[in-house]
Amino acid sequence: MEAASRPALPVALEAQLQALCGDRLHLGEAMRRQHGASEAHFATRLPDAVLFARTTEEVAAAVRACVAAGVPVIAYGAGTSIEGNTTPVRGGLCIDLSQMDAVLEVHAEDFDCTVQAGVRREELNRHLRDTGLFFPIDPGANATLGGMASTRASGTNAVRYGTMREAVLSLRVVTPDGRVIRTSRRARKSAAGYDLTRLFVGSEGTLGIITEVTLRLHPLPDAILAAVCSFATLGGAVDTVVQSIQSGIPLARVELLDDVQMRAVNRRAKLDYPELTTLFFEFHGSASYVEEQVRVVSEIAAGNGGSAFQWSNLPEERSRLWKARHEAYYAALALRPGSVGWPTDVCVPMSRLAECIGATKLDLEQASMPAPIVGHVGDGNFHVIFVIDPARPEELAEAEALNRRLVERALAMDGTCTGEHGIGLGKQDWLERELGEAVDLMRLVKRAIDPLNLMNPGKIFSL
Amino acid sequence: MEAASRPALPVALEAQLQALCGDRLHLGEAMRRQHGASEAHFATRLPDAVLFARTTEEVAAAVRACVAAGVPVIAYGAGTSIEGNTTPVRGGLCIDLSQMDAVLEVHAEDFDCTVQAGVRREELNRHLRDTGLFFPIDPGANATLGGMASTRASGTNAVRYGTMREAVLSLRVVTPDGRVIRTSRRARKSAAGYDLTRLFVGSEGTLGIITEVTLRLHPLPDAILAAVCSFATLGGAVDTVVQSIQSGIPLARVELLDDVQMRAVNRRAKLDYPELTTLFFEFHGSASYVEEQVRVVSEIAAGNGGSAFQWSNLPEERSRLWKARHEAYYAALALRPGSVGWPTDVCVPMSRLAECIGATKLDLEQASMPAPIVGHVGDGNFHVIFVIDPARPEELAEAEALNRRLVERALAMDGTCTGEHGIGLGKQDWLERELGEAVDLMRLVKRAIDPLNLMNPGKIFSL
Repeated sequence: MEAASRPALPVALEAQLQALCGDRLHLGEAMRRQHGASEAHFATRLPDAVLFARTTEEVAAAVRACVAAGVPVIAYGAGTSIEGNTTPVRGGLCIDLSQMDAVLEVHAEDFDCTVQAGVRREELNRHLRDTGLFFPIDPGANATLGGMASTRASGTNAVRYGTMREAVLSLRVVTPDGRVIRTSRRARKSAAGYDLTRLFVGSEGTLGIITEVTLRLHPLPDAILAAVCSFATLGGAVDTVVQSIQSGIPLARVELLDDVQMRAVNRRAKLDYPELTTLFFEFHGSASYVEEQVRVVSEIAAGNGGSAFQWSNLPEERSRLWKARHEAYYAALALRPGSVGWPTDVCVPMSRLAECIGATKLDLEQASMPAPIVGHVGDGNFHVIFVIDPARPEELAEAEALNRRLVERALAMDGTCTGEHGIGLGKQDWLERELGEAVDLMRLVKRAIDPLNLMNPGKIFSL
Repeated sequence: MEAASRPALPVALEAQLQALCGDRLHLGEAMRRQHGASEAHFATRLPDAVLFARTTEEVAAAVRACVAAGVPVIAYGAGTSIEGNTTPVRGGLCIDLSQMDAVLEVHAEDFDCTVQAGVRREELNRHLRDTGLFFPIDPGANATLGGMASTRASGTNAVRYGTMREAVLSLRVVTPDGRVIRTSRRARKSAAGYDLTRLFVGSEGTLGIITEVTLRLHPLPDAILAAVCSFATLGGAVDTVVQSIQSGIPLARVELLDDVQMRAVNRRAKLDYPELTTLFFEFHGSASYVEEQVRVVSEIAAGNGGSAFQWSNLPEERSRLWKARHEAYYAALALRPGSVGWPTDVCVPMSRLAECIGATKLDLEQASMPAPIVGHVGDGNFHVIFVIDPARPEELAEAEALNRRLVERALAMDGTCTGEHGIGLGKQDWLERELGEAVDLMRLVKRAIDPLNLMNPGKIFSL
């Protein structure tokens, strides 16, 4: 129908936005469809228009115009979130920040940099190449820094370098009243009032739009060594991680892939790792300290039934290894051509991790679809990827039931319903179960800052 | 006058609180005076009553009763804050949490513990002694964990282990409506909604009362080595720190004491360090890695005009060294018997630190009072302690002017007006200068959560 594809943007607002951004305002269905689609299993919902912003001032003007017209605003980066975090459930204006892709400042001596929200993490690290510094947070996808801040992303090396919670020093934010604020100065620590930086990190665009991000950087280690080790049992792998941390080893990365995921990785990347529970490690430090770390951890692994370490300090081999890990999601989907992924994640205290993964694995072995497990085990965080045949709606229901059992299990262990994907659309009921009346406090904050509920409405919680 | 010392607590409220806590409700002037006094130069203001709470439920009942009666509530721990953070400027009920001093749970395998808010950090570390773990955050004073969370405290080893922002996993909080919430589960990371934990950390009791704190712990290092090194120039000391961090050395502690502070420390602790700009270091790791760190850093120091390292790995010598550092404040006051201290702190990006301390030092050399400098230089954070003769009110005015110049200098360098002391009463104007309209956003949050402005009113900002 013609009507279905016509945007619902008020005419006066459309004119205002056109005057602001010219042909960077898009009303065509293809562009709207692309911005309303999800990387995961969530149904596509179309925004009324897409605007490619280039400056904070444009974002502020667009927000003011939309709020005056009562039209929702959804910030959009690389579109790699997986809990429906950017789905425009009430239509409105999607502000795409991907053209705000300038690295504004690098302060090498201060170990920080400031980027526009649309800069992607791989581009940032390319930009930093000659500074001796790097930005560690690595969620797998080549996400934008603004998006990573908004979902409180983390990934493979959070065990050593923290998550976006620790990585963000300061933000520039357009608030729902169209003002531009900076949440903090560039000092590494501060006790100056409420922690607005951390309030916006993880708020999924529901309190305002992040347009600039100041990030902590880290010195590139002198030596980096990657290693792979397979285990006869899940418990052996998890115990190896716990004992390594107890021994004070600053693991830079430690990733668990189960047998199903290893099969998927072998197939996609044409590798021949044993198809067993496997840990991928990375060690950072001086040359001698890295050797010491490997020696200690390989002894711990051997004591827990681990294989000998396959290790490498060659950059190209390390890249190949981590590329295989990073493509885990696509490798999983490739197990079943034409499939749709439903990636979910939970995070539990370390002492419960082996039990939580073990019980989950028993569940998944009964499932009618492939469902590999990948975990950032140093944090107690792991993912299940349900690989669903879209022609079989009963599989969606099955995945939903398995996901429910997984999250209930994590909550019963004092864990969280999401370690790093955010709440979006997918985990709202679980947020209430996890935090109870504390969610009412979040609602109070949301209503105070966005009284008309126009910033990415319908996300995190219902109002 | 009799009238002046009579509390203003409404009779019905007094009866309610008495029924709740019996003789743990104190109306006598001595107790009220003690809880209204400041560790620093702020004038004493009396609360109307002091209540020693023993359970979260008692705190919740007291808050409900006070809010119903329109009476302010001020949380009180060890009383070691130094920006007037607990001064009861509008009277009201002071809830003293020091009897809530139980370590509730230690999860060694999860590297975390949960304590009541009144537990002090030294008691916590004594409790942890046999677990192989420790709690690193160390603001000098033997503060309570609830108070440390409330002011976002940090201290000597934040450079390695972070501040209370990073150390707190979860909080139990009594909100102004008398409900008890938990801000997060015990998982090490989570992307589940707004970061309420970080919202309460640093909120100085203005949004609710923290009654339990869940903290991240760290494995005790195999080896600890402390070292002292003096420098001909301030720049040489600061450059040593920057270059060490750039080399990837995970300094566990690095403290700068200027010549005035070294004189004070020598006098008080009967030591004979050279009275020059001095760095106190601590290195943590395996025995061989600690040796490697010391070798690298001592070479860097030598290249920057540093003396040979005086170092020690004996626990008693290390304790003596750090005791001298921890008593810096009292050592400074002892430079001038009968004096009152005005400790202030700022934090700037590392690249500006030498310049900021240098210009400050020039100012202080003109001052009519001693004013030593002590810095957590790995973070860009330093303190000035104005040692004031209370009989000379002109010295207060002079300290105020020097403090103004210090804070303006830090703000001009993109620094913060307080690295770790909080805003309290002392830094409110500076918070506005530092963050501008962002402070309005804090006010929105405050009004939403505490609409009657009864939680520690008058702190952080005016409403």
